[in-house]
Amino acid sequence: MIPTLIDIREAHNRIRSMIHRTPVMSSQFINQEFGAQIYFKCENFQKAGAFKFRGATNSCLTLNKEELARGVGTHSSGNHAGALAKVAQLLGSQAHIVMPSNSPEVKKRAVAGYGAKIYYCEPNLLARENTMEKVIDQTGCTFIHPYNRFEIIAGQGTAAIELLEEHPDLDIIMTPVGGGGLLSGTAIAAKSLFPDIRVLAGEPLGANDAWQSFRQKKLIPSDNPVTMADGLLTSLGEMTLDAILEYVDDILLCKEESIVAAMRLVWERMKIIIEPSSAVPLASLMENREGWTGKKVGIILSGGNVDLGNLPF
Amino acid sequence: MIPTLIDIREAHNRIRSMIHRTPVMSSQFINQEFGAQIYFKCENFQKAGAFKFRGATNSCLTLNKEELARGVGTHSSGNHAGALAKVAQLLGSQAHIVMPSNSPEVKKRAVAGYGAKIYYCEPNLLARENTMEKVIDQTGCTFIHPYNRFEIIAGQGTAAIELLEEHPDLDIIMTPVGGGGLLSGTAIAAKSLFPDIRVLAGEPLGANDAWQSFRQKKLIPSDNPVTMADGLLTSLGEMTLDAILEYVDDILLCKEESIVAAMRLVWERMKIIIEPSSAVPLASLMENREGWTGKKVGIILSGGNVDLGNLPF
Repeated sequence: MIPTLIDIREAHNRIRSMIHRTPVMSSQFINQEFGAQIYFKCENFQKAGAFKFRGATNSCLTLNKEELARGVGTHSSGNHAGALAKVAQLLGSQAHIVMPSNSPEVKKRAVAGYGAKIYYCEPNLLARENTMEKVIDQTGCTFIHPYNRFEIIAGQGTAAIELLEEHPDLDIIMTPVGGGGLLSGTAIAAKSLFPDIRVLAGEPLGANDAWQSFRQKKLIPSDNPVTMADGLLTSLGEMTLDAILEYVDDILLCKEESIVAAMRLVWERMKIIIEPSSAVPLASLMENREGWTGKKVGIILSGGNVDLGNLPF
Repeated sequence: MIPTLIDIREAHNRIRSMIHRTPVMSSQFINQEFGAQIYFKCENFQKAGAFKFRGATNSCLTLNKEELARGVGTHSSGNHAGALAKVAQLLGSQAHIVMPSNSPEVKKRAVAGYGAKIYYCEPNLLARENTMEKVIDQTGCTFIHPYNRFEIIAGQGTAAIELLEEHPDLDIIMTPVGGGGLLSGTAIAAKSLFPDIRVLAGEPLGANDAWQSFRQKKLIPSDNPVTMADGLLTSLGEMTLDAILEYVDDILLCKEESIVAAMRLVWERMKIIIEPSSAVPLASLMENREGWTGKKVGIILSGGNVDLGNLPF
């Protein structure tokens, strides 16, 4: 069962006082370059630096006192980890985070800084899951899946609610897609509010499992994905695939050089720091020039956690 | 004669419809680190990427039609040049910009992108002034000094007006100081509105002419200044020195490594791009730990024009 608009609204009311209502920004220059009105929802300014804080907060706030006392755990390449760690800290719980050893330094530091216990593992899904299982056995913590979880999807959908409150006349709404939590929540919210809106996702060519799964209408997990968009290495889950098949209009692909170009454009012209994953929707528009000229496009900038010592410029 | 609060208010009314009212941002993390409430006025989001757009706009809007038709000119290491070029373009005038050959690439591109004519010169004040004089002779354009001009100082002071409208309870207000236009305008506005507020400036140790001039109460121009804060290489002028001696409480110095640390802190924690000059007030607080603990401090982030191919991280 996937969340509905009602679940997303309930999530919004639940988390509202704990999250930032992030600003929506635009750039005259980018609008001219693209020949469209683009509205960027700045989740890079969200607490812990990414939209993930919404879903993590919603998940933790639905746990009872005993569960919170036993702690919460997850495996994550970074942003969900940071978000869960920060929420746990704020709620007086303990986060147990399984991280791939090759996660960006800035994300490792952030997670540690929020007081979480970190368990490093090899950078593959099997190692993550095995390590996580051990940690759950040892601690009794509640596993909060990074995307394939009802409360996570409902929480991530709240960013689209805010964007559409400020810009109810969007023709298109876009997110990047990794595990699909943000895309699912966004698509459910947007299509339920405005059935005529087009919901698009951007995905790196080197990690195109969602694109393949969408076209074949079944889960095709990534086999050794390679992209600088480190937040999008994960593959869809059952629940996010269901939501995406029901509510998403299309998934567009982009090359790595377009991700760098889009990221650079946003940094130079908007003076805001976005991580590579956030640049993927704009990069996908660059490479797929049809269907959006002259339109109003909302893009959710997913996060801003970048290793400044390791930039692609 | 230096501007008064009335002149700054008039400038504000004159330019209001052409400038961005930039947001004021804070970071819980930075506040905790510093043990103070710091409010950053984000002029990095101003048009052309720096506060300079305020003074340039105010200057151009006080010219008559004939003067605008003959064009406007300046010499500038970058941000004033970009600002004047953009204002001239918006007003249908022609900008003539004398730039040191070693200006950051991103600033050269921005100036050219706004349709200005660029005249490169050696990176010293004499070469700038000689080249500028020739251009004025040839074109009849009006010279808009980057800081030592009544309308420039009045225009730059409008950022402080906005910051103090939103946070009238600031104990301290800070800017970086290069030529002194921003500092002068800020100091006049702040002290006239709130006589008890402390007005401080941050200046790089390697370009400390304002610090010397302030202490000796006379112009001591920089002799071969060296700092990564490329917007602060200029020396005070007569008019800015007068304003600073009358209204500023102190100038604090900082080392280059503190500028990098402060810049990195803002990038990583606030997810916004500021140029090195903007990091100088925060860097100066890091090095001068007295007098501001527990206080409310407003800092004007001067600009966000950074060469991404040449970062100090």
